Amino acid sequence: MPMYPADPSLSSWLPIPGGSDFPIQNIPFGIFSAPGRPMRPGTRVGDTVVDLFVLAESDLLTSTGIPRVVLMETKLNRLLKEGAVSVRALRQRLIELLSEGNAELRDNDALRQKALVPASEVTMHVAAHIGDYTDFYSSRQHAYNVGCMFRDPANALLPNWLHLPVGYHGRASSILATEVNFHRPCGQFKTAPDAPPVFGPTRQLDFELEMGFLTYDGKPIGQRIATAEAEDHIFGLALFNDWSARDIQAWEYVPLGPFLGKNFASSISPWVVTLDALEPFRVPGPVQDPTVLPYLQYTGNKHFDIRLEVAILTASGSETIISHSNFKHLYWNMAQQLAHHTVNGCNVRAGDLMASGTISGDAPESYGSMLELAWKGTKPVKLNDGSERTFIQDGDTVIMRGYCEKDGLRIGFGEVRATVLPAIV
Amino acid sequence: MPMYPADPSLSSWLPIPGGSDFPIQNIPFGIFSAPGRPMRPGTRVGDTVVDLFVLAESDLLTSTGIPRVVLMETKLNRLLKEGAVSVRALRQRLIELLSEGNAELRDNDALRQKALVPASEVTMHVAAHIGDYTDFYSSRQHAYNVGCMFRDPANALLPNWLHLPVGYHGRASSILATEVNFHRPCGQFKTAPDAPPVFGPTRQLDFELEMGFLTYDGKPIGQRIATAEAEDHIFGLALFNDWSARDIQAWEYVPLGPFLGKNFASSISPWVVTLDALEPFRVPGPVQDPTVLPYLQYTGNKHFDIRLEVAILTASGSETIISHSNFKHLYWNMAQQLAHHTVNGCNVRAGDLMASGTISGDAPESYGSMLELAWKGTKPVKLNDGSERTFIQDGDTVIMRGYCEKDGLRIGFGEVRATVLPAIV
Repeated sequence: MPMYPADPSLSSWLPIPGGSDFPIQNIPFGIFSAPGRPMRPGTRVGDTVVDLFVLAESDLLTSTGIPRVVLMETKLNRLLKEGAVSVRALRQRLIELLSEGNAELRDNDALRQKALVPASEVTMHVAAHIGDYTDFYSSRQHAYNVGCMFRDPANALLPNWLHLPVGYHGRASSILATEVNFHRPCGQFKTAPDAPPVFGPTRQLDFELEMGFLTYDGKPIGQRIATAEAEDHIFGLALFNDWSARDIQAWEYVPLGPFLGKNFASSISPWVVTLDALEPFRVPGPVQDPTVLPYLQYTGNKHFDIRLEVAILTASGSETIISHSNFKHLYWNMAQQLAHHTVNGCNVRAGDLMASGTISGDAPESYGSMLELAWKGTKPVKLNDGSERTFIQDGDTVIMRGYCEKDGLRIGFGEVRATVLPAIV
Repeated sequence: MPMYPADPSLSSWLPIPGGSDFPIQNIPFGIFSAPGRPMRPGTRVGDTVVDLFVLAESDLLTSTGIPRVVLMETKLNRLLKEGAVSVRALRQRLIELLSEGNAELRDNDALRQKALVPASEVTMHVAAHIGDYTDFYSSRQHAYNVGCMFRDPANALLPNWLHLPVGYHGRASSILATEVNFHRPCGQFKTAPDAPPVFGPTRQLDFELEMGFLTYDGKPIGQRIATAEAEDHIFGLALFNDWSARDIQAWEYVPLGPFLGKNFASSISPWVVTLDALEPFRVPGPVQDPTVLPYLQYTGNKHFDIRLEVAILTASGSETIISHSNFKHLYWNMAQQLAHHTVNGCNVRAGDLMASGTISGDAPESYGSMLELAWKGTKPVKLNDGSERTFIQDGDTVIMRGYCEKDGLRIGFGEVRATVLPAIV
């Protein structure tokens, strides 16, 4: 399927502040609500949210072939079921409508006022009903770091890691929209190797800097998706914070994997940026040695250069950026992840979420979790207000941001943030 | 919440063959379709399926307070959202309507003909849209057996096993209705410890004899469900075959748990039997030593005496029962599982599925997987047609059945079956 990045020289009749994540070349999709507007699909240009319910109702989107009702839903799943060709047509049509020089919406005062909402006035929601959520573990540096800390630096990567994109199933019910806060989770953990387990609020609350992609429908159960066709089944990407309670996780995870150490909350950014918008930012991936099995081999650039950062905003209002990472650091790309996920016939549905796992680069300042940044508590991270962190404290807000930038074009994801509230004991 | 098992002396004006799993004291719920009847809720008495869409449409169920439209859905989720009190009222009303001596439906020829369908004419579906599926690992004997085979008989149970009900998240998309067959999955595995991994159809396809419970809505995210209130959030139970590819699983599962070795297919029985129907079959659970943490402690009988069996039906038509087990063999009961699952604030939604893990008793003939029955391939299982099995072959149909029986009352689950088709290579 050919890609259609928008012409970088295009501009919009909508104002776009300098450094905005949302030029007319982006056109992400999300679900928003605002006073008098129940949950509905929207896109964003600059600091303006464009109401797709209103545009559909006004028959401005009929040329896309997408039935109006699909754009009047409270989640994007019906749109995703329309598939990649329809979503591309919708995105192209929105770029057309919002381009400098197009008068259809611009000069229709009544409709324009109805269709446009300041971003400051909306509440953003999780864009899709997520059927199944899978979390991969695709950053080599992260897997290496964790292996060093908990196992053996000489054999930090487990034997399977270079042969397949290790992944596991996570919890869909507790995936939260940005700005939805949550209480510090309680659970069982050990305070010393030989001590009996105790129950209480986690003492090792952590974030994980990840990105996740939402899927279109895959193939029927039993059929696999090849790496060459995988991107046809990928709608777009969002920022993802896979909150983790390290002490709970450490005690519970052998042999069946993480469970209560993860499933209390994950936070996802609201605007899903399509692969079409990210097309200019493709980069080669790492050489994979040993050679992977044929079903995991791929051609072309399937990694993306997306700059990522994590900040802690303390209760006192002081923000410190504690990590700079990049989506391109992943060893396994999305096409490989999806090919692996379906190679046994497992079916994927519109609105499934597949996350990358913690994205850590080679440099210590690019690590994607407190566990790694503070190296298991041994190297506290200094914040701008003078305080230190080994893990996340009550009242801390963790903010993740991401954007691509090249040749003067910036395509961004906005941010995802959530504040940790005290445990309910 | 008090329980309402039906009077064991009740009989129905519908015929109930001897040994039926579905006396009037059962009244399970499921989703069926039949010629001229799109998917809709039903119950079953003897060999008759009762169409709840038709009964609702005819206003025979208005006394339950459940809106008619709730019973005109293609899945049970909206009914489950009505909660335990409403479902109990519905079950009580159905028992009343179908009881010997009640003429409302019995003597209304036109309606009766419309509302009743022979079980032989229906297709059964997965009863609910399953939002999240969790698989526990709650049989001590099974955990011990696996530990003996893959680790060390002297330390077969891992340190956490007696302290918490180990569980992990599974795949909801690939949960199949009974009689939905699937292809042998392909994947990566090793053929010798030092050999590189290869790709191909699994050589170690296995079943896992489990039961699973479907939930009502739990509490809002952040709040925990105590063992004492857990059963108020449990709708009912079904048989569950958690198909497994042992070679794929063995290679992939460290450190994040089972993934492609499990998520190609799971099969669930169609009729969900409520806890009310199972009330007469409560039994004490095992003494738990060491004492569990307070949030896992419980009072009363929260285990159930449910007899389980597994049969292999070969392509030649020969059936052999290869395992007799019992749901009462579980170390951790459903109330403990649900209390553990939510103790960190993880939210549970109407229609979530929580399965028990493989249910193995002490006796070798009660083991719940081929892995254990044939002890990792070393003790082939003899079938009635003279053939042997260490794992499941193409063309084999695995059938699981379950029922309770006491004082002349039998409450059963029917069966779940699926046939393994050859791999798509």
